[in-house]
Amino acid sequence: DELHPADLAAAYEALPADPAAVLLGFLEDDVLAAVLTQLPLVDAEEILLGLPDDRLARVLDGIPDDILVDVLQEMPGSQRGHAFHLLSESRRRAARELLKFPDDSAGGRMTTAFASVREDMSVRQAVDSLRGIADETELLARIYVTDHEGLLLGKVRLRDLTFSDPSTLIEELNDRDTRAVLTSADQEKAMRMIMKYDMLAMPVLDEDGRLMGVITHDDALDIQQEESTEDMELQSGISGEITDETYLNTSVLRQVRRRFGWIISLAFLGLISGTVIYSYQNQLNTIFALTVYMPMIVAAGGNTGGQAATMVVRAMSVGELEAGAVLRVAWKELRIGLIVGGLVAVAMVVQIFLLRPAFITLSPPVVAQFALTVGLALLCQITASTLIGAILPLGARAVRLDPAVIAAPAITTIVDATGLLIYLNLARAILPI
Amino acid sequence: DELHPADLAAAYEALPADPAAVLLGFLEDDVLAAVLTQLPLVDAEEILLGLPDDRLARVLDGIPDDILVDVLQEMPGSQRGHAFHLLSESRRRAARELLKFPDDSAGGRMTTAFASVREDMSVRQAVDSLRGIADETELLARIYVTDHEGLLLGKVRLRDLTFSDPSTLIEELNDRDTRAVLTSADQEKAMRMIMKYDMLAMPVLDEDGRLMGVITHDDALDIQQEESTEDMELQSGISGEITDETYLNTSVLRQVRRRFGWIISLAFLGLISGTVIYSYQNQLNTIFALTVYMPMIVAAGGNTGGQAATMVVRAMSVGELEAGAVLRVAWKELRIGLIVGGLVAVAMVVQIFLLRPAFITLSPPVVAQFALTVGLALLCQITASTLIGAILPLGARAVRLDPAVIAAPAITTIVDATGLLIYLNLARAILPI
Repeated sequence: DELHPADLAAAYEALPADPAAVLLGFLEDDVLAAVLTQLPLVDAEEILLGLPDDRLARVLDGIPDDILVDVLQEMPGSQRGHAFHLLSESRRRAARELLKFPDDSAGGRMTTAFASVREDMSVRQAVDSLRGIADETELLARIYVTDHEGLLLGKVRLRDLTFSDPSTLIEELNDRDTRAVLTSADQEKAMRMIMKYDMLAMPVLDEDGRLMGVITHDDALDIQQEESTEDMELQSGISGEITDETYLNTSVLRQVRRRFGWIISLAFLGLISGTVIYSYQNQLNTIFALTVYMPMIVAAGGNTGGQAATMVVRAMSVGELEAGAVLRVAWKELRIGLIVGGLVAVAMVVQIFLLRPAFITLSPPVVAQFALTVGLALLCQITASTLIGAILPLGARAVRLDPAVIAAPAITTIVDATGLLIYLNLARAILPI
Repeated sequence: DELHPADLAAAYEALPADPAAVLLGFLEDDVLAAVLTQLPLVDAEEILLGLPDDRLARVLDGIPDDILVDVLQEMPGSQRGHAFHLLSESRRRAARELLKFPDDSAGGRMTTAFASVREDMSVRQAVDSLRGIADETELLARIYVTDHEGLLLGKVRLRDLTFSDPSTLIEELNDRDTRAVLTSADQEKAMRMIMKYDMLAMPVLDEDGRLMGVITHDDALDIQQEESTEDMELQSGISGEITDETYLNTSVLRQVRRRFGWIISLAFLGLISGTVIYSYQNQLNTIFALTVYMPMIVAAGGNTGGQAATMVVRAMSVGELEAGAVLRVAWKELRIGLIVGGLVAVAMVVQIFLLRPAFITLSPPVVAQFALTVGLALLCQITASTLIGAILPLGARAVRLDPAVIAAPAITTIVDATGLLIYLNLARAILPI
């Protein structure tokens, strides 16, 4: 039984360096090319740079052009030039063309290997023209119809060609569906459209409407995985571009670079909370029980704010919330915050009265005031944090930042300080200090 | 120009109730059926329950069986019986069959509308047998080869039928690829395989190897989106099943139910931090500056722990980390934690010496001891939190819990308490208190 290139790639990654190199030596050139397209780019590059020139030329020739371009981009300049030199003239031109587009644009993501026929062909002519490329083209299930200048006019299905009279004109079978994205569009837009319309592939056009390439359904899965990984990482304050490097293969220093920025910024921002505490030093020293409930109240805000932010960021990234949704979101989260805050407040007030923790060495009327302070602080803190967590991502988008950039830790740090202000001001107003 | 059902569905959702009902009145039965498959289930159910019986029968007939089953499941019992009654005998049987499988299993996700031919057919016979279903079958690009008992033997491509001699036997064209999942498999497994092998569709077999249905590439996109939404929500402590309800359409009370559980549990857990603070009351009252740096040190642990948890949860859910990876993960995160912690510690020590914040009213030697306390506490807290954040999700999986269940807020609450213990014990050891 033959192994799928994806299985060979997984085996390569699982093996130690030496046996892996031996494994590669056994593979045919075209199988090796297929395996390389399944490996993380850094690994693919390393393998390519280790091949002798004649084999390198043959293997490069077998790599689909969208992956080829990614690999070339990964290479250091001098070696990229050398690899370019080994490509055939037509592939070199195609690669140069694709290298112009940013990585995460539709143009940077598309493959130029698609099938097309002209509107004035008969079915017989179309089938003949496709016969030659039947094995090369990634996706013959969608065959695009273009005019003499390459403008997209629609598509025909292979089944229409198979089941139609050979003399039928392509024009009659053309579905005239010209849904497409521009090369400059964000890859996420292409993915969302593929998903919305259940498409097999999305045509990519240049500014003049000429068909330049396609993004296929399997690319859509990769794009969606990349985008949701990026969202998740941004939301926990991990920055920088997502590559296809796996977690275990990413170096410690690269991980540190991606994580350190937010951590150090938030540490300095966290000193604001310290300053708030400092300015209420006298109250805290007078009624030490206030300090005891401080971490819980502060954290409840961070947790509810983080939940609201996640809900809103996710709704935005699956394309739900339009710009006008701010008021609807705010109204919804205000009610959620009040209910959650109210319930937690009641639970804590009951806890204070029933359990009378040992550290509350206060006289009965002051215990009541203390419980009121904790309860009100929880209600206000949770409501405010829920609103802040929901609104900040919408605000970020309004100023053209990725909503997920207002990461949950940033929201936590912000509501840490506001929570302390709420709590300690309520204490000053309610308690005899 | 014709509108795509997905666009009609979007228009319906954007319209207020009355004009939306008018819009539906204008649609042909089959168009309405197509629109319903694009709407959230609750909306689809509401529309169906409002139709007169004759139209309901025709519309139900036009809905693909995987969606039909979802809609039936959504209906209250009595109305489900009524809808069942309106189905044709064969569809009723198919729906009953599909209803047996859990929602998130491959069987619950598959469609039974697939094309198949037998191995002993000629290409001509195969094409003739497919002609009748060419317009009904969702995906003719993959045609499965089965034997007389329905056992999966492989697949042929439409292009092979199109470009082969009509007398060729299917047996010769069969690729003998029998990669498939069982009806009982998790939907995520089917999605991961579709993604790994770039498949158009994944065959779903019963225990005996009979082909029961297929999961198509567009289902894979939906599954991936559901799974990553679930991960993100779990990670911020939002529980409960993901439905296809949108954020704005979910009621406030349902949102509260999904968010409240963690918040109240974490609030009580947060009292542990309060208890820790209480037991160090004397130290804190003696050197109040300790309290000022407390929020920053505690939060730095929560942030770094959350980052590590996100990295590990994501790596697990894209299928990277095997059970044996614990030691490699721990070793990697230990180094990351030491570096990040060391850098933050140095920055804060420098800050204490250079800026000499007004609230540090300590004698110069005690300032040095104080800076040492803060620096060491940051290094230990960040390193410990990074390790805890990375290991807990792996531990959760070891006891068969979803790794994302050890949500970032839970990790934050845990490292809040450990951070206070680290900080205040270091203070007691180093400072003259």
